[in-house]
Amino acid sequence: MRDSVTDLSFFNPMTVPALAALASRVSPAALASGEDMHALLRRLFPICRSITGDGVRETLAIVREYLPALQMHEVPSGTPVLDWTVPAEWNIRDAWVKNAAGERVIDFAQHNLHVLGYSTPVQGWFSRQELEEHLYSLPGQPDLIPYRTSYYQPAWGFCLRHHDRLQLQDEYYEVCIDSTLDAAGSLTYAELLLPATAPEPDAGEVLLSCHCCHPSLANDNLSGLVVAVALARQLAALPDRRYAYRFVFGPGTIGSITWLARNPEAVARIRHGLVLTLLGGPGHFTYKQSRQGAAAVDAAAALVLARHTPASEIRPWLPYGYDERQYCSPGFNLPVGCLSRTPFGEFAEYHTSADNLDFVQPAQLQESLELILRLCQTLDQNRCYRNLLPYGEPQLGRRGLYKGVGGGTEGHDWQMALLWVLSLSDGHTPLLDVAAKAGLPFELLHRAAQALAATDLLAAASVTDA
Amino acid sequence: MRDSVTDLSFFNPMTVPALAALASRVSPAALASGEDMHALLRRLFPICRSITGDGVRETLAIVREYLPALQMHEVPSGTPVLDWTVPAEWNIRDAWVKNAAGERVIDFAQHNLHVLGYSTPVQGWFSRQELEEHLYSLPGQPDLIPYRTSYYQPAWGFCLRHHDRLQLQDEYYEVCIDSTLDAAGSLTYAELLLPATAPEPDAGEVLLSCHCCHPSLANDNLSGLVVAVALARQLAALPDRRYAYRFVFGPGTIGSITWLARNPEAVARIRHGLVLTLLGGPGHFTYKQSRQGAAAVDAAAALVLARHTPASEIRPWLPYGYDERQYCSPGFNLPVGCLSRTPFGEFAEYHTSADNLDFVQPAQLQESLELILRLCQTLDQNRCYRNLLPYGEPQLGRRGLYKGVGGGTEGHDWQMALLWVLSLSDGHTPLLDVAAKAGLPFELLHRAAQALAATDLLAAASVTDA
Amino acid sequence: MRDSVTDLSFFNPMTVPALAALASRVSPAALASGEDMHALLRRLFPICRSITGDGVRETLAIVREYLPALQMHEVPSGTPVLDWTVPAEWNIRDAWVKNAAGERVIDFAQHNLHVLGYSTPVQGWFSRQELEEHLYSLPGQPDLIPYRTSYYQPAWGFCLRHHDRLQLQDEYYEVCIDSTLDAAGSLTYAELLLPATAPEPDAGEVLLSCHCCHPSLANDNLSGLVVAVALARQLAALPDRRYAYRFVFGPGTIGSITWLARNPEAVARIRHGLVLTLLGGPGHFTYKQSRQGAAAVDAAAALVLARHTPASEIRPWLPYGYDERQYCSPGFNLPVGCLSRTPFGEFAEYHTSADNLDFVQPAQLQESLELILRLCQTLDQNRCYRNLLPYGEPQLGRRGLYKGVGGGTEGHDWQMALLWVLSLSDGHTPLLDVAAKAGLPFELLHRAAQALAATDLLAAASVTDA
Repeated sequence: MRDSVTDLSFFNPMTVPALAALASRVSPAALASGEDMHALLRRLFPICRSITGDGVRETLAIVREYLPALQMHEVPSGTPVLDWTVPAEWNIRDAWVKNAAGERVIDFAQHNLHVLGYSTPVQGWFSRQELEEHLYSLPGQPDLIPYRTSYYQPAWGFCLRHHDRLQLQDEYYEVCIDSTLDAAGSLTYAELLLPATAPEPDAGEVLLSCHCCHPSLANDNLSGLVVAVALARQLAALPDRRYAYRFVFGPGTIGSITWLARNPEAVARIRHGLVLTLLGGPGHFTYKQSRQGAAAVDAAAALVLARHTPASEIRPWLPYGYDERQYCSPGFNLPVGCLSRTPFGEFAEYHTSADNLDFVQPAQLQESLELILRLCQTLDQNRCYRNLLPYGEPQLGRRGLYKGVGGGTEGHDWQMALLWVLSLSDGHTPLLDVAAKAGLPFELLHRAAQALAATDLLAAASVTDA
Repeated sequence: MRDSVTDLSFFNPMTVPALAALASRVSPAALASGEDMHALLRRLFPICRSITGDGVRETLAIVREYLPALQMHEVPSGTPVLDWTVPAEWNIRDAWVKNAAGERVIDFAQHNLHVLGYSTPVQGWFSRQELEEHLYSLPGQPDLIPYRTSYYQPAWGFCLRHHDRLQLQDEYYEVCIDSTLDAAGSLTYAELLLPATAPEPDAGEVLLSCHCCHPSLANDNLSGLVVAVALARQLAALPDRRYAYRFVFGPGTIGSITWLARNPEAVARIRHGLVLTLLGGPGHFTYKQSRQGAAAVDAAAALVLARHTPASEIRPWLPYGYDERQYCSPGFNLPVGCLSRTPFGEFAEYHTSADNLDFVQPAQLQESLELILRLCQTLDQNRCYRNLLPYGEPQLGRRGLYKGVGGGTEGHDWQMALLWVLSLSDGHTPLLDVAAKAGLPFELLHRAAQALAATDLLAAASVTDA
Repeated sequence: MRDSVTDLSFFNPMTVPALAALASRVSPAALASGEDMHALLRRLFPICRSITGDGVRETLAIVREYLPALQMHEVPSGTPVLDWTVPAEWNIRDAWVKNAAGERVIDFAQHNLHVLGYSTPVQGWFSRQELEEHLYSLPGQPDLIPYRTSYYQPAWGFCLRHHDRLQLQDEYYEVCIDSTLDAAGSLTYAELLLPATAPEPDAGEVLLSCHCCHPSLANDNLSGLVVAVALARQLAALPDRRYAYRFVFGPGTIGSITWLARNPEAVARIRHGLVLTLLGGPGHFTYKQSRQGAAAVDAAAALVLARHTPASEIRPWLPYGYDERQYCSPGFNLPVGCLSRTPFGEFAEYHTSADNLDFVQPAQLQESLELILRLCQTLDQNRCYRNLLPYGEPQLGRRGLYKGVGGGTEGHDWQMALLWVLSLSDGHTPLLDVAAKAGLPFELLHRAAQALAATDLLAAASVTDA
């Protein structure tokens, strides 16, 4: 049983080198490399995004250049969405603090983190003491500008380097925040649906979600955005997608809540989901399980991470984090996990001006894209099969699946993969479980199942069988 | 989400300092401190108890001074109880062994352990060799008197220090045991029922049981008795008891068997139970699981012990030990665990005259009382809740449960407690399970559930829902 | 509770010394010792076995001398069996390679491993280069002859020591393989059924299977064969077998497939099974679990191995190995494990001429026999009981099962065994589970259950109850 199959050329193994080939099937304008993604990220970085407003619109318009089928949605301020209400739309033109000499000592034009997100408009002179109550800085990281917001409590404020704050010695300062909060505005989000190219009845959808509400922060979460865009392009180019793939780009919390409120039918079609975030910085991958904890996406992530990035970490569900909080809220309880590199709050640059274009590296974006693509492929190829000749082992040699002359390890693993698939394919054991029991790569088991399904020995079980 | 709620004053956290406040609600005659319990124990220590007889009656009469509602029961000798029969009542006035010179060399008046429990009456002269067959001593602990009984096989005997035994060199000894075994007597046990003060339909009862059949032994089991009495007084003073609490004080084995035989209706109402024993000696706490193993009392004990006395130990069910053997016998299979400090047979003083008033310390009694009270509170507060707005996260800020300005760890834990309760409250997940998953103190989750239940977000599930 | 029962003479403990007594009940011609088994193995060793042919017939005829009730079966070549077809019958008279000088440089008469199993007949002169394509040797083990076969692909060849191969320097060699492949032949296997001697309705059968298709290899698998024969004799002598025991002796793979194809009714009666292999070499025992993984045979093996041969190993199911592959194929999914010492492929002598009569030792055969007999006894005695007085503990003393005067560890374990059986016997918990929970020897719990079943306290549950 150390023998190998000689001709595997008809299989299409999803190995890392194959990604290049895969990418080459995509149009020349593809967003396939880490460098491509980083270029897009650089273009998006300067825009001042928030949970509503023109920054989000501008961002999603650029995304649409890469994903022409992207659908834009505007939801009027005041619209009730689940337990929430769509807030007034926030826009900002300028903001500064001038000293007695009329010099801009804090200037929104220099860095859009300088303004407290969703600041109400203000204009006038303030004593230094009054001003201090509206300032945010980090004494422990005195060279960094913090990122702060106040979405649901009206407030205004400035964020600045603590070093600069200590220079503010004048008695009075002139303050201007030229912002608007428009109750007749709207919240913007976008959606892309890639239909299944190998559809099956009731196969359903895979949800991929990322937030797009942070201003000039590169890792949180432009990295998730550009990886999602590249992922959508890669998936669009694959000929054999069993699932439809739905991408949601929206502001954090209120965006996913709005989407959930408006799309009950799509919600019912979600079979697996991933929130994508913090994918461009350093650090190993971290997968946070869905609230279900034992969903297929959780099993797939465990398998893919263990094999392809062993230094990664699996964490249990926690009702805190990104938009998985909404997707996994108990009423919906969707099987949605969250994939990131170093999680939020666990790296020094988090929510500061140091989360910049240098912090996010092309190679890290590329590695993230490859991992997520592999995870999507694993979900897409994960299905149940039924052994059609389950009484005794079938004679593999007669069907060209057993070769008389011995070979190497690959041959042995291949034979074992065939035997494991035959042994466990009872019509309701997914290939992911077979892979976990066999201790063999999912890709190899998928190839073995394909080879067996080409004979009289195995048949794919339909979704409803499983 | 690092923010805290500012005003928690309306909550009544069950923290250690709060025990003092709790105690202060009790009447001046309360038995609240370790010193109080030790004083009661000293009063009870000299009485010669057995599984029947006046010693038990005298003991329970003293208990009734502290628990006026205590109900005394007398069950006639000869009454069939399950597979057993209530034995003849045993009483003893005097017992001694005199040497040839007429000196009492073993004297019941000196220590009631000197007589083999349930000794039949005897009077006459015996050769030293004949006497030796009725003597019990501990060669390995020659300064201690052992505790021995022969309840169900008629016998007489004396227990003595091995050093003293070696001094018996006379040829003949006069022996007297002035005891009676009265077939027209009875077995005595007592019961106290604290009704629920916040009753709910079918909430049921918590059983607390300790044995009272040992003569002058302090830890086994006067410690359990005095802690049970103090616990009953503490619980009686609490205004919000969802469960009724039933205390059973009776002789070991035959007492619990008698109670079980006579109280089928009460048995059916027991939801949780604890046998209390060996609570005044040194050593860490040991909880022995019920036969069910995964009962709520087992989960509560695991949680409470792990948090409040980490050096404790959880042991699996074993069909040997104290009265949990009867409560957990397979026909009843009640969810009754056993809490002790160092278990029986695992400390040198066990069942000897060294289990005396010095061995039991007030601080240890006090610590035991606090732990058991906390365990009872945990059981009483453990219930299922239902998230009434389970679709998406509710907006906590709007309900005053989310504060805009950041805080410390307490604030973070409080927010996490709110989120965990919302995430897992599906109507059939008890708060104990939420606490175990969240890794947060049960008390904090209880407070969070109370706060949420005061809004439109959460409702307690009824017992029948859960 | 440290007391012991004084008279245990009516119990028949299944301890190791008792095996001698057990063996003595068997007829004088018994095959009870390791030496006896080794003698039989020496007699069988020289025969040239294959998956069909006279070597198998001769082997099984010798087995029948020890097991007169053995039934021989001949299945015609060409018979369809599950997905396979019974192959043509192979026999061989002679085979050699002669050098230019006419000397036999490879000679089947010297060692039957020299011929590739199932070699097609051949006669003629071949150049050294042509011959080389038909030679098999082990460069890494140059002094050993490898064992090779080609059952389902027509081929001829010779196996030889690599040292000897290097001596072949002539230009031409004369080759002769005087073999026949007879399409009108048959496949031979044998079966022995020991009926239950203490039968119960629907008790079913225990399957014991070993292969008999290897030529002069001692450990693989003459060791399994002789242990199986001895086991059958031992079991036949036991008076109280609840199960019937079915032994199948046949060629690997095609033998078990043939048996499965022809015996659907017997298949339906199999309750437990073991494939016996590699039982005479050194190394600790290895039990490979059935595909079910949690079958009674898996639990029994875990318990017996852990207690009686602690250096053993339990391995999970793997769809590769010996005939358990067929018995556990998903359509049958029988609860059949595989017991061996060092597994195949994990010792240097595997499938070489070094797997010889010296490699297999009498003491190892004896130890294997004792272990398997104990495992069979455990399965036979494993049943569910029902506590007939489950309310409270019964009074054991009244029934002579509790003795008043203390004893040693045996006494304590005996009392605990009684209590564990009473505590867990709910009519559907098998004694194996009781033993695992109690941490006591299965034999002791079996004795305790027997003692309790002799009173009014316990009754064996019928198979259909459990």
